[in-house]
Amino acid sequence: MRDLEDWLENTVKEIEPVPEKLLKEAQKRLDNLTKPKGSLGRLEELGKRFVSIRRNLEERVKEKIVLVFACDHGVTEEGVSAFPKEVTQQMVLNFLKGGAGINVISRFLGAKVKVIDIGVDADLSHLEPQGLIIKKIAYGTKNIAKGPAMTRSQAIKAIKCGWDLAKEAFESGCNLIAVGEMGIGNTTPSSAIYATITGKPVDEVTGKGTGIDENALKRKRKIVEKAIKVNKPDPKDPIDVLHKLGGFEIAGMAGVMIAGAYYHVPVVVDGFISTSSALIACSLNPVIKDYLIFAHKSEAFGHQAALEYLKVEPLLDLKMRLGEGTGAVLGMCLVELGEKILHEMATFEKASVSKGTEV
Amino acid sequence: MRDLEDWLENTVKEIEPVPEKLLKEAQKRLDNLTKPKGSLGRLEELGKRFVSIRRNLEERVKEKIVLVFACDHGVTEEGVSAFPKEVTQQMVLNFLKGGAGINVISRFLGAKVKVIDIGVDADLSHLEPQGLIIKKIAYGTKNIAKGPAMTRSQAIKAIKCGWDLAKEAFESGCNLIAVGEMGIGNTTPSSAIYATITGKPVDEVTGKGTGIDENALKRKRKIVEKAIKVNKPDPKDPIDVLHKLGGFEIAGMAGVMIAGAYYHVPVVVDGFISTSSALIACSLNPVIKDYLIFAHKSEAFGHQAALEYLKVEPLLDLKMRLGEGTGAVLGMCLVELGEKILHEMATFEKASVSKGTEV
Repeated sequence: MRDLEDWLENTVKEIEPVPEKLLKEAQKRLDNLTKPKGSLGRLEELGKRFVSIRRNLEERVKEKIVLVFACDHGVTEEGVSAFPKEVTQQMVLNFLKGGAGINVISRFLGAKVKVIDIGVDADLSHLEPQGLIIKKIAYGTKNIAKGPAMTRSQAIKAIKCGWDLAKEAFESGCNLIAVGEMGIGNTTPSSAIYATITGKPVDEVTGKGTGIDENALKRKRKIVEKAIKVNKPDPKDPIDVLHKLGGFEIAGMAGVMIAGAYYHVPVVVDGFISTSSALIACSLNPVIKDYLIFAHKSEAFGHQAALEYLKVEPLLDLKMRLGEGTGAVLGMCLVELGEKILHEMATFEKASVSKGTEV
Repeated sequence: MRDLEDWLENTVKEIEPVPEKLLKEAQKRLDNLTKPKGSLGRLEELGKRFVSIRRNLEERVKEKIVLVFACDHGVTEEGVSAFPKEVTQQMVLNFLKGGAGINVISRFLGAKVKVIDIGVDADLSHLEPQGLIIKKIAYGTKNIAKGPAMTRSQAIKAIKCGWDLAKEAFESGCNLIAVGEMGIGNTTPSSAIYATITGKPVDEVTGKGTGIDENALKRKRKIVEKAIKVNKPDPKDPIDVLHKLGGFEIAGMAGVMIAGAYYHVPVVVDGFISTSSALIACSLNPVIKDYLIFAHKSEAFGHQAALEYLKVEPLLDLKMRLGEGTGAVLGMCLVELGEKILHEMATFEKASVSKGTEV
């Protein structure tokens, strides 16, 4: 496994910031379009970031893909979730049949959904013909209240899995990617990662997940505390944090983020869970943040703490807290719209519109 | 003109609230879909409101139209805008050629753009073959710093114009409509209406429009003060406010809102200018608010004051301040998405997904 550890270390080191020069050139183009300067707000920012990340001012959005990583969490045996663990695999089937929120949103907005079994606690190989991508690292993680979720090498393997899937998508023409997840219990490992990396108290980053009551919330917070106490993750070593507290989906999404930054493709981050992946990825190299687009402020309690830590302002606040990548696909739509603004609006000159004297 | 005044009075009186019963039934359906209760946040609210406004739980979004009202404002002679008045007609041409922000956004999101000359200060009849709808009330309004913008009967005529266009759209299959505008100088009448109806000080509802400097802003605020002082609009009589301070586009958009409420079609409100239409419409009958969907918080200074007065929370905050209906078309996309969530997601039963014990 030393090989993969070296690969990861070298790869994240090679990631370079998005060139200021390109961002400025794109802004110049935007300022020449028939609208008051800056009046399309964050859509302009997105168009500018898209072409600059792609290192090509003429780049158009081609294929949009959302990678949805599904897996289970040993910590569910502590009773931290409102839904039974079986829902993870039931929802995988729902994804494949097109009946879930992510399917409806992606169909409408023209994104392709790819579902990955990165660690569901059941043999789902019979679903491969229906489109499920099987990349199982293990049959669920171990219970983080008792010890590490996975081994260090499993964590890196899960990152590499996300990386490989992203790379494959980029090679097949996808130039805008989003991440999503399904994993009953996964707000618990996410909260533990939030607390460890941001340094915030557990109570400020641990909420009711899909909808537990006050008593269950108290229990959940104790479990998160316990997971940190038992595992003693080193906040200076993101892979240590990830393998001790994480989930396979959290690692997989971090891998997509690293790949996006490396291959110059914007990665749209969804909500509470995928932001824990962003915390891991940006701890490996803060430059990765240049390539991430935070789609929405999740209604999940504590999300704001991580957004503040990362100093990012998400695009949307629609009181959503479903996960699956639902917010991220909306975010991809806004990026695509920003790209279209940049490329399809008429310039003042072309449209013979008088320029203003704006300041 | 007494006829039209009677028509308006009787029409707004007949508007009925959206039935609570339907909203509850739609919520029940939403709660049975494969997601934690309420986890799609405002998308659920939009789906629910759409079908309830349409009085049909099975209703699907058919044709989406944005009506863009263009006209000029006599008050531009006071130097209140960063752009010369001619830009209104230049932008009308840009709309017809498909090069403006509203065109790019509408093309991408599948909305039809209809452009109306409701009072441009130029003869644009040669543009009718290119699709311009000519409903000119006058060649621009009069300067509100010196007297009323228009006569009372012109104001009602302009409302009726918006009503007629909306009705025609509904009859041709449109069941989701948005309003937008183009009119150099129109933040000035809007601010005057904001101040009069909300009772807020002029300085709190008057900003830099498309981008004037601090000195011009001071002058603009004085002009708004003067317009109110000279005209003495009666805040209890919305048509008095409208004809003394308004623009033809503001009246036209108010007409669309009244028609939407009357014919049970949701009307998506754009930003600063169209919210002044909403202030007029909701002053005529507060029930109209049930039919309005506020798309976004405009970056235009003062917009928040009207949103608070109306006690509405807009869907988006993308730092936009272009107008034209750009924010409203984004809002229509979210409404359509909400409708699809309601109708296309699988239920727990159908997808064989276990229900949670959520509270």
